Amino acid sequence: MIRLFVPNDLSAGAGVVPTVDQSRYLTSVMRLSVGAELLLFNGRDGEWRATLVEATKRGCLLKAEEQTRPMTLGPDLDLIVAMVKRGRVETIVEKAAELGARRVRLTITRRTNVDFVKLGRLDAIAMEAAEQTGRLDVPEVADPEKLDKILDAWDPARRLVFCDEGGDARPMIEALSGTTGPAAILIGPEGGFAPEERERLRGLAFVTPVSLGPRILRADTAAISAMTLWQAAAGDWR
Amino acid sequence: MIRLFVPNDLSAGAGVVPTVDQSRYLTSVMRLSVGAELLLFNGRDGEWRATLVEATKRGCLLKAEEQTRPMTLGPDLDLIVAMVKRGRVETIVEKAAELGARRVRLTITRRTNVDFVKLGRLDAIAMEAAEQTGRLDVPEVADPEKLDKILDAWDPARRLVFCDEGGDARPMIEALSGTTGPAAILIGPEGGFAPEERERLRGLAFVTPVSLGPRILRADTAAISAMTLWQAAAGDWR
Repeated sequence: MIRLFVPNDLSAGAGVVPTVDQSRYLTSVMRLSVGAELLLFNGRDGEWRATLVEATKRGCLLKAEEQTRPMTLGPDLDLIVAMVKRGRVETIVEKAAELGARRVRLTITRRTNVDFVKLGRLDAIAMEAAEQTGRLDVPEVADPEKLDKILDAWDPARRLVFCDEGGDARPMIEALSGTTGPAAILIGPEGGFAPEERERLRGLAFVTPVSLGPRILRADTAAISAMTLWQAAAGDWR
Repeated sequence: MIRLFVPNDLSAGAGVVPTVDQSRYLTSVMRLSVGAELLLFNGRDGEWRATLVEATKRGCLLKAEEQTRPMTLGPDLDLIVAMVKRGRVETIVEKAAELGARRVRLTITRRTNVDFVKLGRLDAIAMEAAEQTGRLDVPEVADPEKLDKILDAWDPARRLVFCDEGGDARPMIEALSGTTGPAAILIGPEGGFAPEERERLRGLAFVTPVSLGPRILRADTAAISAMTLWQAAAGDWR
């Protein structure tokens, strides 16, 4: 069944006016007619079965009928990723939604050579991926920040899993086995971290350096593999 | 350092004429001049340091100097993936190269609704990804075959890891823990496997059904996550 994210509060009988794009998708692409059923979620009220009660040229009106799933959030995982080429950042955001990250934080490191990103487009990708993957929230995509600033403000209760290409870190699945609590995964830019960044990271008590195997991975591959292994070792794939 | 895949035999002093595209890449894109060093591999003779000995408008001549790494192959892993949209198949082939699959086999299932794929383009993607990821071979991309035909001819010594969306399979990392020997991962099309396909797969002695978590994954995400978990549990990420 079609799932749509909407910002509205959801309760029995609540009317929901979808955006122009969503209305067009429902009636012109998916060809729903009045009476058709779909699912709605808003990140707060779980998932609701809804019906299409009105479809005009100006848009649709939906009505929430009954809750199909109570609100739950996935495990508390952030993904922090150095800005890379647009196509790869878009892939990363899509996959973060599918692999259950709560938040994607873009970061600027010494060797980051991409300085522009269309946050609106990334939000749209996160929303569409959340609709398709079945989760009840949409991951937030946070504005780019400098890595040093992120580390300065770090809450030490959150483990930072540092994907370290340096070579001597333990395999990720082994390093994370039995760990619990909130976490974040840090993925560097295509050129890797600068030596001084690596040194700072490895000196921080909340950082767990991990290895992602013997081959060189692109940033999007590293992000997807790391989120997968975290879910398998410490998240909701157990 | 630049790495190039070449079909030629590699030995000390061997001359190698790269393709027109490779020559253009070396001299026009990377701006190498005579005397510059690069690395060559051919899938048989390991990796060799080579020098650019001639660069004319018509092309380059390279000379293999000395072996830098002896020939090794990664673990014996195939990826069998139902044909999906072009962009996603291309992502899957690129990631199979990075994640150490030896071979990508395209398959046609009951619900596969894509019937065309440019194999030449997929080979080029596999080659470029192999060059960048540092492996010593290029994964083969095999012609599409029907799933039933693949299963009819299966060598039972190879474990078939079936990514089953049916819900009751064990988590992949747990189901594969301690397994050894050759393996293949099977990923279905966007619409999933048909009930009769799933039934056949679950009845075969060489099949291990596994689960990839509670969310619905696109085919490319499932392929990347499954290769990652296989490498972590049974491959060279341990």
